[in-house]
Amino acid sequence: MADIIDGKAFAAALRESIADGVADFVAKAGRKPGLAVVLVGEDAASQVYVRNKHKATIAAGMESFEYRLAADTSQAELLALVEALNADPAVDGILVQLPLPNGLDENAVIQTIDPDKDVDGFTTTSTGRLLTGLPGFVACTPLGCLMLLKDRLGDLSGKSAVVIGRSNIVGKPMAQLLLRESCTVTIAHSRTADLPAVVRGADIVVAAVGRPEMVKGDWLKPGATVIDVGINRVPAAEEGKTKLVGDVDFASASEVAGAITPVPGGVGPMTIACLLYNTLEAANRREGIA
Amino acid sequence: MADIIDGKAFAAALRESIADGVADFVAKAGRKPGLAVVLVGEDAASQVYVRNKHKATIAAGMESFEYRLAADTSQAELLALVEALNADPAVDGILVQLPLPNGLDENAVIQTIDPDKDVDGFTTTSTGRLLTGLPGFVACTPLGCLMLLKDRLGDLSGKSAVVIGRSNIVGKPMAQLLLRESCTVTIAHSRTADLPAVVRGADIVVAAVGRPEMVKGDWLKPGATVIDVGINRVPAAEEGKTKLVGDVDFASASEVAGAITPVPGGVGPMTIACLLYNTLEAANRREGIA
Repeated sequence: MADIIDGKAFAAALRESIADGVADFVAKAGRKPGLAVVLVGEDAASQVYVRNKHKATIAAGMESFEYRLAADTSQAELLALVEALNADPAVDGILVQLPLPNGLDENAVIQTIDPDKDVDGFTTTSTGRLLTGLPGFVACTPLGCLMLLKDRLGDLSGKSAVVIGRSNIVGKPMAQLLLRESCTVTIAHSRTADLPAVVRGADIVVAAVGRPEMVKGDWLKPGATVIDVGINRVPAAEEGKTKLVGDVDFASASEVAGAITPVPGGVGPMTIACLLYNTLEAANRREGIA
Repeated sequence: MADIIDGKAFAAALRESIADGVADFVAKAGRKPGLAVVLVGEDAASQVYVRNKHKATIAAGMESFEYRLAADTSQAELLALVEALNADPAVDGILVQLPLPNGLDENAVIQTIDPDKDVDGFTTTSTGRLLTGLPGFVACTPLGCLMLLKDRLGDLSGKSAVVIGRSNIVGKPMAQLLLRESCTVTIAHSRTADLPAVVRGADIVVAAVGRPEMVKGDWLKPGATVIDVGINRVPAAEEGKTKLVGDVDFASASEVAGAITPVPGGVGPMTIACLLYNTLEAANRREGIA
């Protein structure tokens, strides 16, 4: 049976070490690191995410600046807010919660964020820095996956890794991070010819496709390390109930893998922890603290 | 025996079609597309490259603006020139010939180029746009490789591709281009364990490592399409003479591959053709010509 990679415990420890880092920052800079979160409209899931981010930010000892705007906010108003946050010295990190209501241009809003405050790592400058190896911010979910992998495996150099999924927020940056660690990286996706065979060649499998329990145990190389980014809600055995499953069929995969993240409790808790990590990093860089 | 992919002929045809596009542009915009090339110092190879670019630009019917600066040019002077070119409406494309003399900060100079005039595709914004799928400019060498592949194979979707080498100017953008075409893409490099086995799985092999004749015929899947980006000068059979070879052992590879680019005469001629292609594209975008 595979070892279970406990993302919840790892994230909790990471948040503690971030809180220590925050205390150091406060001692040196004479102020708290500040994270601004912008929420437009009434999307229920987004409200939960924003509330959780707010709580975690406060718990880490940082300032949390929340901006809740009406769904009919204009593009110009939203851009003006982002620009004000760019200029605000108390704000180290800026996150605009996606999706934005229809009629707002997400890309234009994201691109307006100062790359040095782009703690979500979504601006073109941040992704370009990642591709070319310049210092910058990396999207929180792939960053969290990488931390779990390094914690489990140590040096990743020379390992073969498969990333399933090529989204801008997970698959593509994940592949770049693994390449930076000197893995041999394969990016697979819906058009990949023989996905089981591709997965079977990999020491590291990161699944980020959003298809419930797609990756089966017999696709895996025995002993592989499996990171499951998927969070899919599916019907549960009990009538009318639902449950969360990943992109990996945990039951069969855990028979073959050397280690695997569960869903929930694997990658999920890492995302907010990495947001705090990036925010502290942004604050330290802005104040010139090593 | 493999078919030979004649990059010289393809590039000549591409340059003719660019010349037609330039004539259209002139008719619509009332001016020629303009490419500015900046050369600092006396590097002999750079002087040859710049001269060849100049000739090709003129031959395509474009304006060529050449700036030759002394090796002791200051960073501030060079940045001021790039900013003037950014602001010059007659300049559609800007290329700063690398390497720059010691003491000049290449990255700072490149990042100063307006991304909408970045026909070399080297700015962080251009690489970020490539990663996230936004319109932008792609580095000339990988763009040329992709054109040769599409000319040979048509739709690349679902094909397995291996890129050997992870440089910022070839390997990494090449992998992104192939991913955009829906290949299953593996990026291999010096740390890859069992490179021959990785290469043997690929329908498409792009070699960009700078190691003479490294990729052998028995590494290849029979029928694979092989793009050799390497240009390595090695001793020739005749005493005291040298010759150019690629990263692929052409003699053995051409026995197994379905198609292969020679060195010289394969990828090499595509690079300047793609520079002209990007410059015409930049001009059309700037003037709003579809």
